[in-house]
Amino acid sequence: MSDKLIIFDTTLRDGEQSPGASMTKDAKVRIARQLERLKVDVIEAGFAASSNGDFDAIQLIANTVKDSTICSLARANDRDISRAADALKGANRARIHTFIATSALHMEKKLRMTPDQVLEQARQSVRYARNLVGDIEFSPEDGYRSDNDFLCRVLEAVIAEGATTINVPDTVGYAIPELYGNFIKTLRERIPNSDKAIWSVHCHNDLGMAVANSLAGVKLGGARQIECTINGLGERAGNCSLEEVVMAIKTRKDYFDLTMNIDAKHILAASRMVSQITGFVVQPNKAVVGANAFAHASGIHQDGVLKARDTYEIMRAEDVGWTNNKIVLGKLSGRNAFKQRLQELGIQLESEAEVNTAFAKFKELADRKSEIFDEDILALVIDESASHDQDAFGFVSMSQRSETGERPYANIVFTAGGKEVRGESNGNGPVDASLKAIETHVNSGAEMVLYSVNAISGSTESQGEVTVRLQSNGRVVNGVGADPDIVVASAKAYLNALSKLQSKSERVMAQG
Amino acid sequence: MSDKLIIFDTTLRDGEQSPGASMTKDAKVRIARQLERLKVDVIEAGFAASSNGDFDAIQLIANTVKDSTICSLARANDRDISRAADALKGANRARIHTFIATSALHMEKKLRMTPDQVLEQARQSVRYARNLVGDIEFSPEDGYRSDNDFLCRVLEAVIAEGATTINVPDTVGYAIPELYGNFIKTLRERIPNSDKAIWSVHCHNDLGMAVANSLAGVKLGGARQIECTINGLGERAGNCSLEEVVMAIKTRKDYFDLTMNIDAKHILAASRMVSQITGFVVQPNKAVVGANAFAHASGIHQDGVLKARDTYEIMRAEDVGWTNNKIVLGKLSGRNAFKQRLQELGIQLESEAEVNTAFAKFKELADRKSEIFDEDILALVIDESASHDQDAFGFVSMSQRSETGERPYANIVFTAGGKEVRGESNGNGPVDASLKAIETHVNSGAEMVLYSVNAISGSTESQGEVTVRLQSNGRVVNGVGADPDIVVASAKAYLNALSKLQSKSERVMAQG
Repeated sequence: MSDKLIIFDTTLRDGEQSPGASMTKDAKVRIARQLERLKVDVIEAGFAASSNGDFDAIQLIANTVKDSTICSLARANDRDISRAADALKGANRARIHTFIATSALHMEKKLRMTPDQVLEQARQSVRYARNLVGDIEFSPEDGYRSDNDFLCRVLEAVIAEGATTINVPDTVGYAIPELYGNFIKTLRERIPNSDKAIWSVHCHNDLGMAVANSLAGVKLGGARQIECTINGLGERAGNCSLEEVVMAIKTRKDYFDLTMNIDAKHILAASRMVSQITGFVVQPNKAVVGANAFAHASGIHQDGVLKARDTYEIMRAEDVGWTNNKIVLGKLSGRNAFKQRLQELGIQLESEAEVNTAFAKFKELADRKSEIFDEDILALVIDESASHDQDAFGFVSMSQRSETGERPYANIVFTAGGKEVRGESNGNGPVDASLKAIETHVNSGAEMVLYSVNAISGSTESQGEVTVRLQSNGRVVNGVGADPDIVVASAKAYLNALSKLQSKSERVMAQG
Repeated sequence: MSDKLIIFDTTLRDGEQSPGASMTKDAKVRIARQLERLKVDVIEAGFAASSNGDFDAIQLIANTVKDSTICSLARANDRDISRAADALKGANRARIHTFIATSALHMEKKLRMTPDQVLEQARQSVRYARNLVGDIEFSPEDGYRSDNDFLCRVLEAVIAEGATTINVPDTVGYAIPELYGNFIKTLRERIPNSDKAIWSVHCHNDLGMAVANSLAGVKLGGARQIECTINGLGERAGNCSLEEVVMAIKTRKDYFDLTMNIDAKHILAASRMVSQITGFVVQPNKAVVGANAFAHASGIHQDGVLKARDTYEIMRAEDVGWTNNKIVLGKLSGRNAFKQRLQELGIQLESEAEVNTAFAKFKELADRKSEIFDEDILALVIDESASHDQDAFGFVSMSQRSETGERPYANIVFTAGGKEVRGESNGNGPVDASLKAIETHVNSGAEMVLYSVNAISGSTESQGEVTVRLQSNGRVVNGVGADPDIVVASAKAYLNALSKLQSKSERVMAQG
């Protein structure tokens, strides 16, 4: 019988640590629900001790998602571990993932601890965690660059204390498949009690090899858990992509001979959801989920190339959720059809009142455009929940105009701390003018480091979805806004980003 | 002494075949010059027999680029090979790359030929090519899925006929590093005259492993040429990324022990140029060239994480061309400063008259925005050359307005076949209205399959660069337009795409 491979998704933890990818609690729950629908085995929902916001999000996900194991990250100390255990109380199955760096570089420069101190702290932390939760994962941070003898001592000790999963991160994305696979293999061979734990791989993509390294860790090394994220989201070049690693294992079952729980047909929806929530675009030539990955499914046909589909195709687009049938609702669609579509899209609104509000917005949108795509609905709800969460600034109305030879002009009404204010300004373009009009009141001093727009379903008839990334005093936030009018969407995104900057949450960051 | 690894870039051939990535001749030359600056060993400039446009582009590149070998693809027949040789006449060093499919599936379904016929055609074609050019590359298309015995017979035969490079494509992106590396190794061991040719790898990224597969082909298989593209551009999930594979070899010199000619500090400029010309965005979490790949270099800092930079960094951002020093020119910059900056950016305008036109545009832009970034200059010149090449439709002027509660409206003047026309329309937003205003005259019937905007340097004060992808009767074209006013940029991009649709070039496509 084939071995079972555990898929551990860390979009909400390692993925969210990506500068600009921070998510609201509601957005995290929505993603967690989609991960559950994907049948991800373990969802790392956050890092409970890093902030109250993260604690709350983990707690909410633990109480909401019942099919997947819910995990919290924790540094190797009692306080972090207690916070993780507290946040996970409502979970059907809870896991604490504790970590401490084991490479000479990290121990010396970051922790300022001796190897013996690190060993002792790892041991004590796992012992402490094991008294709170039965399912304990331990990671030696920067494990791949650690001294082999020392790493073996640490891992043997934590397994003896009851760690049930040992995860070996290539924290800086330095590994090569052959070397990483043999590294895992050697650890498992050298550590006497290695068979008491499930081995896990966690690879970063700095050299473009996170997927291949993870798979080598499984095939050559004998690991049976892969840590990954939707769209490969994560710091720097990101983590191993869930969609790629899963489809590689499925497509090359002849080689890997592993079974997984994953229901791949929810992959594309997960990818789009994460992209829309974080504002991180997926490039067209991204494997599996990029617009060109299956050219025919994104409405693109190339005459004369595809005499027989299997000549050039190793996966079926339908298997990962691509479909041509994208127009779902319109002006005449009723509340029930809308509600059902929300459910199919993985959006669960908390109360009937919220459904009513969303439906009213939907009708308003349907008055302005004839075909409502899934992406429009997602944008509408994301836009809605964004404005729920963060209400320091809210869009009310605006007018703008531009004409060749004249300075573009915008006049905008918005709420600031509950009060309606009006601003007007010229600018380089109408978008620039409207953001300057907002700044006449706000004077945020923030620097814009990213501005991007995607037409939600490939045409300007759809809504425009704008992402604005602002930086101020070392904090980076993404604001998103959607509207059929790109200038309005930009103003909404900017107000959303300003609101996030206003909410002064501080948090501890971890690397894995 | 370390072996030399040959970097073969196929951005202009395999990359350009990506639906929507077609490039004008001028754009191709600009990219080729940047590849020369990168010190790419071989530039595959196109597929001469596929269209007159491709032939012309190869010819122009062969006459312009002198440091790199210039290569044309050719099917394994005399006509294709003659066209390739003709196009390459002006090259300092020319290569013909001929190919024929060798997998059972492709031979039967695509070629409708027997294996013996394929073998004979391969042999004759290489013999014919060898009389025209000394440097001959042969690729067995879908080589990785071909019968091993048959493949060995074909490759032995073409080496005997004088093929100097043997390239083994994983055409459908099905390979796994270990398997692909051993596949190349086995071929080299089994084929008696294998040492008479340089072996090459050509991997696609459908399962996210193109880079790792290429490297395994080199390390385990003994290949000494890698075929790759900037940004991993290419059909479906694209090809092996030049920037990733090059930086992996440099960063892990301890493992690969290879030398390359590549001058990596031109990587980022090459990435941006290809992205701007094709309109294919690079996702933020793309290795090496994504905005987040080196978070600190893109203006993003994360407090408290980086106690020591080398703790988390395996490459230096500066080594691939990242720099914080981005403001280069302004209103007061003179013609010489502008011209020098153009040269540094790899833009060589053909005549002083063209420099004057570009400088006039630059001054016009500098009147409208205070800081001119490299990206602005690139966009200005790209916009300029786009309108040079394709002049069926041209932007003249427009006015637009939108106001909450009213239908957005646009009024646009543009040229159609040399005549000025005016159109007006309402729309869902101002962009939609302006494109509808254009369509009141044009009635193209084209379907918009992509609309995207990037602020050229991360803020709305910069120009907006818009990409519009249109599809009509099986053809897909990308139009690009840049302007500080996003609505104007959209109209320009749309007119550019319509012009491209108008030029009815037909071409043969190849897979590699």
